[in-house]
Amino acid sequence: MSDGETMGGLLEAGAAGATLTSAAPLRLDSGAVIPSLEVAFCTYGRLNADRSNAVLVCHPLTLDQHASARHPKTGKDGWWARVVGPGRPLDTDRYFVICSNVLAGCSGTTGPSSIDPTSGEVYGMSFPVVTVADMVRAQAVLLDALGIDQLFAVVGGSMGGMQALQWASDYPERLFSAVVIGAAPRHSAQNIAFHEVGRQAIMADPDWRAGDYAKAGVRPEKGLAVARMAAHITYLSEAALQRKFGRELQRDGLSWGFDADFQVESYLRHQGQVFVDRFDANSYLYITRALDYFDLAAAHEGNLAQAFRRARDVRFCVFSFSSDWLYPTAESRQIVRALNAAGARASFVEIETDKGHDAFFLEEPALHAALEGFMTSAAVARGLT
Amino acid sequence: MSDGETMGGLLEAGAAGATLTSAAPLRLDSGAVIPSLEVAFCTYGRLNADRSNAVLVCHPLTLDQHASARHPKTGKDGWWARVVGPGRPLDTDRYFVICSNVLAGCSGTTGPSSIDPTSGEVYGMSFPVVTVADMVRAQAVLLDALGIDQLFAVVGGSMGGMQALQWASDYPERLFSAVVIGAAPRHSAQNIAFHEVGRQAIMADPDWRAGDYAKAGVRPEKGLAVARMAAHITYLSEAALQRKFGRELQRDGLSWGFDADFQVESYLRHQGQVFVDRFDANSYLYITRALDYFDLAAAHEGNLAQAFRRARDVRFCVFSFSSDWLYPTAESRQIVRALNAAGARASFVEIETDKGHDAFFLEEPALHAALEGFMTSAAVARGLT
Repeated sequence: MSDGETMGGLLEAGAAGATLTSAAPLRLDSGAVIPSLEVAFCTYGRLNADRSNAVLVCHPLTLDQHASARHPKTGKDGWWARVVGPGRPLDTDRYFVICSNVLAGCSGTTGPSSIDPTSGEVYGMSFPVVTVADMVRAQAVLLDALGIDQLFAVVGGSMGGMQALQWASDYPERLFSAVVIGAAPRHSAQNIAFHEVGRQAIMADPDWRAGDYAKAGVRPEKGLAVARMAAHITYLSEAALQRKFGRELQRDGLSWGFDADFQVESYLRHQGQVFVDRFDANSYLYITRALDYFDLAAAHEGNLAQAFRRARDVRFCVFSFSSDWLYPTAESRQIVRALNAAGARASFVEIETDKGHDAFFLEEPALHAALEGFMTSAAVARGLT
Repeated sequence: MSDGETMGGLLEAGAAGATLTSAAPLRLDSGAVIPSLEVAFCTYGRLNADRSNAVLVCHPLTLDQHASARHPKTGKDGWWARVVGPGRPLDTDRYFVICSNVLAGCSGTTGPSSIDPTSGEVYGMSFPVVTVADMVRAQAVLLDALGIDQLFAVVGGSMGGMQALQWASDYPERLFSAVVIGAAPRHSAQNIAFHEVGRQAIMADPDWRAGDYAKAGVRPEKGLAVARMAAHITYLSEAALQRKFGRELQRDGLSWGFDADFQVESYLRHQGQVFVDRFDANSYLYITRALDYFDLAAAHEGNLAQAFRRARDVRFCVFSFSSDWLYPTAESRQIVRALNAAGARASFVEIETDKGHDAFFLEEPALHAALEGFMTSAAVARGLT
């Protein structure tokens, strides 16, 4: 726990953000130790007097702590501005919303592009492999520094949902409620396979330089763009791709060449290009690795319910999307069954949509309405006015 | 049509194979002309006296003319040895089976790695973009040289199925029957997207050298391997990947690094590595492009039935696989509906399997039994004994 002065400063991080520096070593699942930790985060709203209205938003793979308001780099709205803000489902007039960049990220939290205090050089591939549980440990360090003993809610989609599940497993006493959107209790073989394609694309880029590209002043942009393109397909449903692009051409007629003839090609190339401007290749390697290692039941002899055995007092809401083939509804149902078996109260909503996995941060009124309903009901139960 | 001597020689190509050299220019859909054409092919069985028992097998994207018997390079069985051979569904004791390497391929038929007779140099990216219809044109040139006016059957899976559909559209009078397995009447936005990832991976490899790698004595192996890995995932179902690999590890425990920890990673890397030994990167670009351009209805104002209007006397059998997400059953149903609307007789069989798209050349007894049944029934109708 930080002293009062630091805490007060951190509580005023706001949408512009702040960085917690913790001099305490962070011991990781691998056994490795990070000698000191920085956690970059933003906050929205105000912490109430009894510190009971804090909501931790956990971000997905390639996003960051800028969940709402303008992103200082891109100038665009935060990635979850539809959900986090005044009058939104995570209503910043009622809740104090915190979002921190994950461990191994590239937006201010300690990661492979940070300076290793031991060597004075960029970590690169000497950064230790981290897990989703390690990400959650770093978030717990932040909450300690903010003086928040219990979260009113932990909320996340995709990898953020896995962090929320990990919170329920590792720190149930620090949760009043948890919202898990479009997630899974473990990475499937197909999930791992797609990530491995992305990693191989990055590592095949000669500018990756065995992870030491920063020292060489280059970046494996082509490999990272290919990784992004492959992953991006998995975020959308086949139906959404067909509806948005079909076989529509960029120009009148085919080019009879290898330029982007089809709008879907141009769209994918664009996704790859803009991604390399905002994301670090090594962070992509480490975070995908953390996801592939994610298997919440593994530490409990394969019994997922055991992972939640101490979480029976937490109120859960689990969402899935009918057209999500990255983390299909069946995997959300596994989570819900395990929560039920553990005796926790769990609501489950499958949202009918053709938007695929990315539905969790797109315009999806049914999700937003159901999320708001759950939050309001939980707020009443918690005595938040 | 070749003279009798050439024809006789070609008819004895056999499993070892032969190459037709046609001095006649081949005019392509793009308007470009290939000044002279080579078509590499193998045959299995014997052509009967009235030349009525010929079966053309059309190969999928990355395969070749070695459908049966031992492959001269790999030493393994031909890719469809389960289907083509004595007593097999395409029974070489009854039928004369021909399989030719596609135009733009890399196994002996004219393609981007061939010598451009005009310049005396390897075509590379100066090779014209070809279509599935152009592939079929090259096959028709081969049949002319073999003196085969009408095929008893054209049979193909995946891209081979698209060639079979194109045959039915362009040369219905040369078909008695057609078998279309795990195909689609057009490439969807998602199909195009996956191919574009593969092309971008190849073109991102500095050893690609704008397609001129042959002159430089290098090969874009890393890019091609990544392309293969991405595509390979689409050939398998999520369920099959889970059944075969799940989250099984290569060794006891995690490596806490970026080696292949999971068996599925090791499998994918292996798929990428063996592929670069047997396939050419530019051929991959050209053949994926041909597939992405494939849209049988486009030349008929979007009316697929019109594409089959001259094929009402052809007997069709269409197969799909319940777990194929590359070319799902719904797309086979579109084909069948269009065939019905055109007045053609079409059987349709959806094979229940978890093997995904690749089921068409795996051990799939239900497919083999149904295919044999269709062939035998068609043989009776054709008067083949």
